[in-house]
Amino acid sequence: MVNVEEALKILSDNGINLLSERLKVSAALEQVLAVDVVSPIDMPSFNQSAMDGYAFNFHPDQKSYNVVAEVAAGSANNPKLNKGEGARIFTGAMVPDDANIVVQQEWIDRVADVATITESVQIGRNIRLQGEQIKKGSIALEKGTLITPAAVGFLTGLGIAEIEVYQNPKIALITTGNELVKVGQDLKPGQIYESNSEMLAAVLSHYNFNDYSLDTVADNYDATRNMIRSAIDNSDVVILTGGISVGDYDFVGKALQEIAVSELFYKINQKPGKPIYVGKKEGTLIAGLPGNPAAALTCFYMYILPAMHQMIGKGFNGLEKIEIPLGENYTKKGSRAEFLKAKIVDGEAFVLGMQSSAMLRSFSVSQALVFIPSTTSSVAKNDLVTAYKLT
Amino acid sequence: MVNVEEALKILSDNGINLLSERLKVSAALEQVLAVDVVSPIDMPSFNQSAMDGYAFNFHPDQKSYNVVAEVAAGSANNPKLNKGEGARIFTGAMVPDDANIVVQQEWIDRVADVATITESVQIGRNIRLQGEQIKKGSIALEKGTLITPAAVGFLTGLGIAEIEVYQNPKIALITTGNELVKVGQDLKPGQIYESNSEMLAAVLSHYNFNDYSLDTVADNYDATRNMIRSAIDNSDVVILTGGISVGDYDFVGKALQEIAVSELFYKINQKPGKPIYVGKKEGTLIAGLPGNPAAALTCFYMYILPAMHQMIGKGFNGLEKIEIPLGENYTKKGSRAEFLKAKIVDGEAFVLGMQSSAMLRSFSVSQALVFIPSTTSSVAKNDLVTAYKLT
Repeated sequence: MVNVEEALKILSDNGINLLSERLKVSAALEQVLAVDVVSPIDMPSFNQSAMDGYAFNFHPDQKSYNVVAEVAAGSANNPKLNKGEGARIFTGAMVPDDANIVVQQEWIDRVADVATITESVQIGRNIRLQGEQIKKGSIALEKGTLITPAAVGFLTGLGIAEIEVYQNPKIALITTGNELVKVGQDLKPGQIYESNSEMLAAVLSHYNFNDYSLDTVADNYDATRNMIRSAIDNSDVVILTGGISVGDYDFVGKALQEIAVSELFYKINQKPGKPIYVGKKEGTLIAGLPGNPAAALTCFYMYILPAMHQMIGKGFNGLEKIEIPLGENYTKKGSRAEFLKAKIVDGEAFVLGMQSSAMLRSFSVSQALVFIPSTTSSVAKNDLVTAYKLT
Repeated sequence: MVNVEEALKILSDNGINLLSERLKVSAALEQVLAVDVVSPIDMPSFNQSAMDGYAFNFHPDQKSYNVVAEVAAGSANNPKLNKGEGARIFTGAMVPDDANIVVQQEWIDRVADVATITESVQIGRNIRLQGEQIKKGSIALEKGTLITPAAVGFLTGLGIAEIEVYQNPKIALITTGNELVKVGQDLKPGQIYESNSEMLAAVLSHYNFNDYSLDTVADNYDATRNMIRSAIDNSDVVILTGGISVGDYDFVGKALQEIAVSELFYKINQKPGKPIYVGKKEGTLIAGLPGNPAAALTCFYMYILPAMHQMIGKGFNGLEKIEIPLGENYTKKGSRAEFLKAKIVDGEAFVLGMQSSAMLRSFSVSQALVFIPSTTSSVAKNDLVTAYKLT
């Protein structure tokens, strides 16, 4: 058994790095650049008007200009402008080579073909110079950058169709337990509805891990071993729930041993989620989560999520960590560290009732997991605690 | 023209409420319950063992018991246990009616068929009583609850297959501008790559607004009006970019007038994003965003995102709002309010370069939008500012 801090260190020290893949820019949203992206063009690619107005062959001592042409956005028109001449121009349009200023139309008095500037202006005004945002051949975004909606827009604006990002992992979710039946069937005595697969699929989707398979295996040693072996061969991450404890029908541990998975740790001195197993084999991370759903979800958030983020270049980061005052006194019952489902009200955390590892009711309405280290036995109202934000 | 605070109030006061729809629980992730959900079962639905161990017909004065049966998880076995008898039992299994305790196996000394309790224990130990998490017919989750992964698990565990949530809006994204060409084509003089549609599609996906169409319309009045009219007829939200300013080729404003859209506001005293139009018609929200991409995205985050969240029961909430010290002195150039792309380093916000409304480069690497109100002309290093978190 390890403690929480040791488990986190072991996981972070044993990170698995996935390869990169080439994706359409829009498909790479939320992923991380695996190589620098170089701009294929100057941006803007021509001197561009920033306003609706007039482009002039401007001389500081001259206020009135003959309007001899028009340049709309998208037009290749590059009219010759002699001294004292100008062109009607619009936002985004190409500024004629002969123009050295764009004056917005609100500052122009136009009478027939003569435009008179009504304010004091300077050369260069309202012209976005070719290449001023980025020059062709320079680095647009560096390796390690998260592809946000803004980055999708920026790269698309540079004419880039595809980028190289860290691969999303292929995940196998396997639930065990003879007591489990699928929603839609009637419960017989002793049976419960299987919910871990839907819950873990939901949390994977929430974090954009969309490449997962779902399987259920009965409490049978050979079937369990064969399914895990095949999952390891075909996946980057194998997540099991249940079957990892000490009961006669818990076959996961024995199967992992026979398959020669290297154990990183088994059991963490925490509540909920003490019976968690994590191992590695040939570039695959294997997580044996507890069967109790609140324990399984806590373990996923605290250990598997950061390990998976590390795989895809996001660093060993899971839920957002904050420091927050506790709204009430809290006394721990045992010596294990605790992750407590909590509400946040007016900047204070309040521990909810129903903290059992079997119960998701409080988890469903909690906003944070409050962490009480194993070395802390009680926390007074207003003391700061570490919490991990859920929403 | 309105100021930022007025625009937010007008939007929040003019919220549109969408109808609800019945979805599979897993498909309702991130959506909001439109009605209370009542539990169809007791949970647990039987007295359930919380441990691997032994269930006894226990009497405080007796330490040793004959093991006469076994109950595995999922089994309907309910063995008769006389005084002084017990059954081997496993986590999740149904506790026999004749048993009043489960003792974990670590506290049992088993010799042949006799199990002796080695610690002091009390009646009721390790039994999860039928209905202790929730009783059949009581409210499992209230109207207004966000469906998180934990909620998906909780509802699935209750055997619930479908729930009633607020509908996600149907969105029409329309980009305007003759200067725009699609990635993959060569840029001719005066042309730029169209990136607003990819950027806005990405930000919609990021917030799970996945029901959108993408269209482009040329700078032509009839085409613009017809496309907007059809989009309003078929969508809950219409988002346009470009064509809303004062140029001769800006047809969006005129079209909205002819279609008799009710204007909520036009122009906000802010930078970037001054030329934004928001209106309503027959339950459809219409947003005319600026064509410059950084302005369009800022306006989406600050105004359209909270309005869309309000539609689906999440309240008028957009980016997470924080108070944070500024890392350097900042002086505003004009009188408009500003939303500034910023990095957050060690708990301080630093305003990035390249704040032009045409530039997404800084937006791509920024972590927050720092808000400088119109009434503030400068902020000193270490002064607290309001910021909206992007990542």
